[in-house]
Amino acid sequence: MKRLILSLFAVCSLWMANAQNPAWGPQSKVVTDSIYSTVLKTHRAYTIYLPQSYDKEVDRKYPILYLLHGMSGVNTSWFTDQRVKDVMDQLTASGEACEMIIVSPNAGGNPATCWNGYFNMPGWAYEDFFYKEFMPYIEKTYRVVGDRQHRAVAGLSMGGGGTTSYAQRYPDLYCAAYAMSALMNIPVSGEAAGKDPDPTNKVAVLTRSVQEHSCIKYVLEADEARKAALRTVQWFVDCGDDDFLLDRNIEFFQAMRNAGIPCQFRVRDGGHTGEYWHSALYMCLPFVSRCFER
Amino acid sequence: MKRLILSLFAVCSLWMANAQNPAWGPQSKVVTDSIYSTVLKTHRAYTIYLPQSYDKEVDRKYPILYLLHGMSGVNTSWFTDQRVKDVMDQLTASGEACEMIIVSPNAGGNPATCWNGYFNMPGWAYEDFFYKEFMPYIEKTYRVVGDRQHRAVAGLSMGGGGTTSYAQRYPDLYCAAYAMSALMNIPVSGEAAGKDPDPTNKVAVLTRSVQEHSCIKYVLEADEARKAALRTVQWFVDCGDDDFLLDRNIEFFQAMRNAGIPCQFRVRDGGHTGEYWHSALYMCLPFVSRCFER
Amino acid sequence: MKRLILSLFAVCSLWMANAQNPAWGPQSKVVTDSIYSTVLKTHRAYTIYLPQSYDKEVDRKYPILYLLHGMSGVNTSWFTDQRVKDVMDQLTASGEACEMIIVSPNAGGNPATCWNGYFNMPGWAYEDFFYKEFMPYIEKTYRVVGDRQHRAVAGLSMGGGGTTSYAQRYPDLYCAAYAMSALMNIPVSGEAAGKDPDPTNKVAVLTRSVQEHSCIKYVLEADEARKAALRTVQWFVDCGDDDFLLDRNIEFFQAMRNAGIPCQFRVRDGGHTGEYWHSALYMCLPFVSRCFER
Amino acid sequence: MKRLILSLFAVCSLWMANAQNPAWGPQSKVVTDSIYSTVLKTHRAYTIYLPQSYDKEVDRKYPILYLLHGMSGVNTSWFTDQRVKDVMDQLTASGEACEMIIVSPNAGGNPATCWNGYFNMPGWAYEDFFYKEFMPYIEKTYRVVGDRQHRAVAGLSMGGGGTTSYAQRYPDLYCAAYAMSALMNIPVSGEAAGKDPDPTNKVAVLTRSVQEHSCIKYVLEADEARKAALRTVQWFVDCGDDDFLLDRNIEFFQAMRNAGIPCQFRVRDGGHTGEYWHSALYMCLPFVSRCFER
Repeated sequence: MKRLILSLFAVCSLWMANAQNPAWGPQSKVVTDSIYSTVLKTHRAYTIYLPQSYDKEVDRKYPILYLLHGMSGVNTSWFTDQRVKDVMDQLTASGEACEMIIVSPNAGGNPATCWNGYFNMPGWAYEDFFYKEFMPYIEKTYRVVGDRQHRAVAGLSMGGGGTTSYAQRYPDLYCAAYAMSALMNIPVSGEAAGKDPDPTNKVAVLTRSVQEHSCIKYVLEADEARKAALRTVQWFVDCGDDDFLLDRNIEFFQAMRNAGIPCQFRVRDGGHTGEYWHSALYMCLPFVSRCFER
Repeated sequence: MKRLILSLFAVCSLWMANAQNPAWGPQSKVVTDSIYSTVLKTHRAYTIYLPQSYDKEVDRKYPILYLLHGMSGVNTSWFTDQRVKDVMDQLTASGEACEMIIVSPNAGGNPATCWNGYFNMPGWAYEDFFYKEFMPYIEKTYRVVGDRQHRAVAGLSMGGGGTTSYAQRYPDLYCAAYAMSALMNIPVSGEAAGKDPDPTNKVAVLTRSVQEHSCIKYVLEADEARKAALRTVQWFVDCGDDDFLLDRNIEFFQAMRNAGIPCQFRVRDGGHTGEYWHSALYMCLPFVSRCFER
Repeated sequence: MKRLILSLFAVCSLWMANAQNPAWGPQSKVVTDSIYSTVLKTHRAYTIYLPQSYDKEVDRKYPILYLLHGMSGVNTSWFTDQRVKDVMDQLTASGEACEMIIVSPNAGGNPATCWNGYFNMPGWAYEDFFYKEFMPYIEKTYRVVGDRQHRAVAGLSMGGGGTTSYAQRYPDLYCAAYAMSALMNIPVSGEAAGKDPDPTNKVAVLTRSVQEHSCIKYVLEADEARKAALRTVQWFVDCGDDDFLLDRNIEFFQAMRNAGIPCQFRVRDGGHTGEYWHSALYMCLPFVSRCFER
Repeated sequence: MKRLILSLFAVCSLWMANAQNPAWGPQSKVVTDSIYSTVLKTHRAYTIYLPQSYDKEVDRKYPILYLLHGMSGVNTSWFTDQRVKDVMDQLTASGEACEMIIVSPNAGGNPATCWNGYFNMPGWAYEDFFYKEFMPYIEKTYRVVGDRQHRAVAGLSMGGGGTTSYAQRYPDLYCAAYAMSALMNIPVSGEAAGKDPDPTNKVAVLTRSVQEHSCIKYVLEADEARKAALRTVQWFVDCGDDDFLLDRNIEFFQAMRNAGIPCQFRVRDGGHTGEYWHSALYMCLPFVSRCFER
C-alpha cells in the first residue's frame, strides 16, 4: 500500500507538475485508536474511517456504519484485508456512496488465546461493552448524526452473524443491516466444538454464544410484534455459492421471507474468502447509503 | 493476508471438522525467485503464479501471461497490491478464466535510485534482457506451451505502455494485450521531465525512452504491413475517467480505430489507483483466457 | 409482452394458488395520452410511467424524469424498445432506484416526413412547446414535486443531445442529466446534411438546429458565470466504444473536465444500439435517484 | 424493433454517408421455419439464430445452443421477449461469446388449449419428437458440428426444468446446461393442479409430467454411475431472490453439491420476469461459449 502511494506520488510529481489534481486536496483518512473498557477491564482498539470532507466541514455530522470483522480478525482487518478505504473513496467520488464514518471495533484475534465474538459470554460481556461504552464513546468523540436513520451495521462471517443479531435485537438503533457470508448459526459440522464445558475453552464458549443467538431461530420464533420491529430495518444477505455457511444463510432468508419481512438475498460466485468480502463492499456501501435518510 | 488464512484455517478446523472441502486440496501458489542477467549485470527478481493443477498434472503445459507492474512497482506489486492470486483463484474455480501461468518481472523500484522501464535505455538494456534472457528462461524453467497462441501480456500504467509497445513490436510473440491506465506516451504535463540531458538522471532517461516508444505514434505512422501485423493481436484498452493518462489512451484508441485495427476500449469509474487495476483483473483474465487457443 | 404476462398469469394461477404474492398487489403503470399544443398547432402524444404507489398514496408527490427518445423514435420508444418499465420495476423493488414519474414526449417520427428534434426550428418551435406547454401541463396534471431538486432529464442519441443542451441552458430546472450515445453535435461525416437551404427539408433543418446548439461549443465558450451554473447540475455521459458518435462525446467530456465541471464518463462495450440504451438504464435510474433530494 | 432499425438506418444514411461501418456488412439473422412431426402428427415451428459469418463462411460448422422457452411461450419468445439476437450480437462483437447457432423449438402456447412441456405425456410424445425428429433435422439442415462438445442447452422456467432434465438424462449429448428460474419440480403450492385425472386437462397432464421428471429427485436418487455421468456436464443454475420457484432451485443445488457434482449457483435480484431472463443471457452465452471445445 505504501509502495502504491509512493508510486503515485512519484508519477504525479514528475509528470503532472502543473496539472491541477483534486487528488492532492483533502483526503479521507483511517485512524486506529483505543478505548478503555470498564466492562471488559482492558483497552480495546478500533479503526475508523473519516470521510474526505471531515476536517474541512467542521460542523457537519455524518451517518455511521459499524463494520464487524470475522473470527480471528481484528479492528484493522477490514482496512488491510478488504481495503474498505479504497472502495469507499471511489464510490464517494462517483456518488454511488454518500460520505459516512465507518468504524470497526476489535472483537477478536487468535481464537485459541483471545476472546472472540460480539455477544455476552461468561466472563466476557462484549455486547455490554459495545452498547454501553463503545457506541456512546464513538458517537460522542466523532461528529456522528446519532439517530437510527443514520446508523447501519455490516459484517463478514462471525461479524455477519453479529450484524444480523444486533439489528434483530436493536432495531431501534439501526436502519440497515448487510450480512456477508454470515455465521447465522453454527453449521451442523461445527456443533461439536460447543460441547466442551471447560469455561477456559474460548472457542467452545464462542460456539455456544453463537448458538444461543441463532439468527434463524430468532425469526422462526418471532411473534407479530417482533416481526413488525424487524420490518423497520432494511436487510441484505449476501453469501457465496461455495461458502460452507451458505445453507445457514438460505435458512435465514427463507425464514425472513416466510415471515413477510423484506430481505434482499444474493448468492454470488465465490467461497468464504477475503476477495468475496472485498467485492461485497461495492454493493454494501451503496445499499447503506440509500438507507440513510438524507 | 496471513491473518486471513489463519482465520479461515481456524474457522474451518473448528467448525468444518468432517466436511469435505476442495479448498484443502492442491492450491495455486505464488513463488518469488530471481535470474542472473548478463545483459544487465545483476540479479533480477520475478514473481510467478502457478495454477492449482500445476503440481498434480506433471506433464501438462500452460498458457502464460506476462504481467507488467507500474513505475516504482516491483515484481511483487501485482500480488501484494492487486491480489492477482485471489482473483485468479476465484475466476478459475468458476471457469471464467482458464488455468495459466502468470509471471511478473522486476522492472522498477524507487525511480530516484533504481532503473525503471521496459525499454532499452543507455546503460540499461532492459528489453534485451526481457527477450533474450528472461522470457527464454521462464519458458524453459516452467511448463509453458511457448507459442504465440498461448502467450499474452498485460500491465498497468508504465507497464500498460510496456504491454502495448511489446505487443506492437513483437506481434509474433503475443496473441493478446490488455493495457490498464497505460502510459501510451508521456502526458504533455510531464514532457519537461525528459529534458535533463544528465545521463544519471534515471527519470529523464525513462521519460525519453517512453517518448521514443510512443504507442500512439507507432499506430499513426503504420504502413499497411504494420497494420496487418497489429491486426493479428487482440487488443483491450481500459482507463478510468479520472485518470490523468486518459487523453493518451483516447488518442491511442482513436488511432487504432482509424487504422482499422480492432481494439476493445473501456472507460470505467476511477482514477490512477490500485483499486482500479484490481477490478480490471476481472475483465483482463477472462479476456486473455478467451484469446488463448484451446 | 402480453404473451409474457399471460404466461406468468397462467403459471401463477395454476401453481401458486394459495401463495401470497406481492406481484398481484398494486402495480406501476404506463399510460399514453396527448396534449394539444397551441405553439405547434397540433396534438402531441406522450407516454408516462406512474410508480407502484401512485394510485394508493393519493397525496404523495414524486420526482420526475424527462426521458427523451432518439431520431425517428416517438413517445412510446423508451417503453417498447428499451423497456423502461421492466427495469424500473426491478430497481425500485430492490431499492436501487426510488419511485419516480417518468415521461417521454413525442419529438420525432420518420425524419423524411415528420418534424424531429428538441430545439426551436423555423416553423417548429418545439423547445417553446416543451417549456411553455408540456412541462407545465405534466407537472400540473400528475402529482409531481415540481422543483429542480426533484427533476432530471435523460435521453439517447438525438435525445442525449437534447438532454445535455436542456440541462446546459436550464440548469435552474434540473438537478441531473444522463446522456446516452448523445448527439453532442453533428459528426463531421454528417455535416453535409445541413447544407441544403430548402426549408422543407426537415433533416437539413434538424441538422442545423443541432449544430447551433452544439453542447461542446457551449462548454468551450463558457465564462465563469456559465461554468458556475453548469456545476449545479450532476452530469453523466455514457457512450459505446463502437458508437459512431463516440468522438463527440469524448470532446464534450474533455471540455467539461478542462472547465472544472464534474462529469461522470463511461465508455462501455457496444455500438449505437437499443441494447446499449436498455443496459444504460441500470446506471441511469440509480444515478438520478441519488441526485434527487430525499 | 423495426422502428429501431429504421431509426439507425435514417441516422446512418444521413450523417454517416462516407463512414465505413462494419454494421452494414453481413449480419446475423433470425429465421422462423417449421418441421412436420410424424410423432406428434402436426407441424411444429422453430426459430433459429444464424451467426454473422454463417452465409460468408460456407464450409464452417458451428456449435449449437438449444434454447427452451417457458410455459405459454412459443418458439419466438426468446427472440421477441428476451431479445437473444441483440445480446448475442453484442457479445460476439466483443468476443465474450463465440459464434454459435441458437435454436428454439415450439413446445408450448396457451396452456388451456395447447400441449405444453418438454417430456413425453400420454397422447403427446414431445421428447420423442425432440430427440428423434427435431434435433436430427436441425443438425442435418444447418451447419452444426454435431458432437456433445459443441452442443448445449439452456432455458427459462418450464424450459429451465426441460434444460436440466434433458442434460441429466442425455449427458452424452450436451456439454453444458444453464437453467434460469427453473421448474426443477412443481412447487408445493401447485401440486393440486396435477390431481385432476381427466386426460384432456392439459395442465394436469403437464403438472404430472414435471413431477415424474423431478430434477431434484433425479439427483437425490443417483447412484455412483449416474453421478459420474452428471459430472461430465457443466451446470449453471440462476434464479431470482423474489422468484416463487427459488426454493426448488435451492433444493436442486444442494442435492448437486451434496452429491459432489460441480454446479455454479447464482441468486440475483429479481423475480420470475422477462427482464431477469434477458439479463441472464449475459452470463449464459459466455458460459456456454467457454464450455464449447474450441
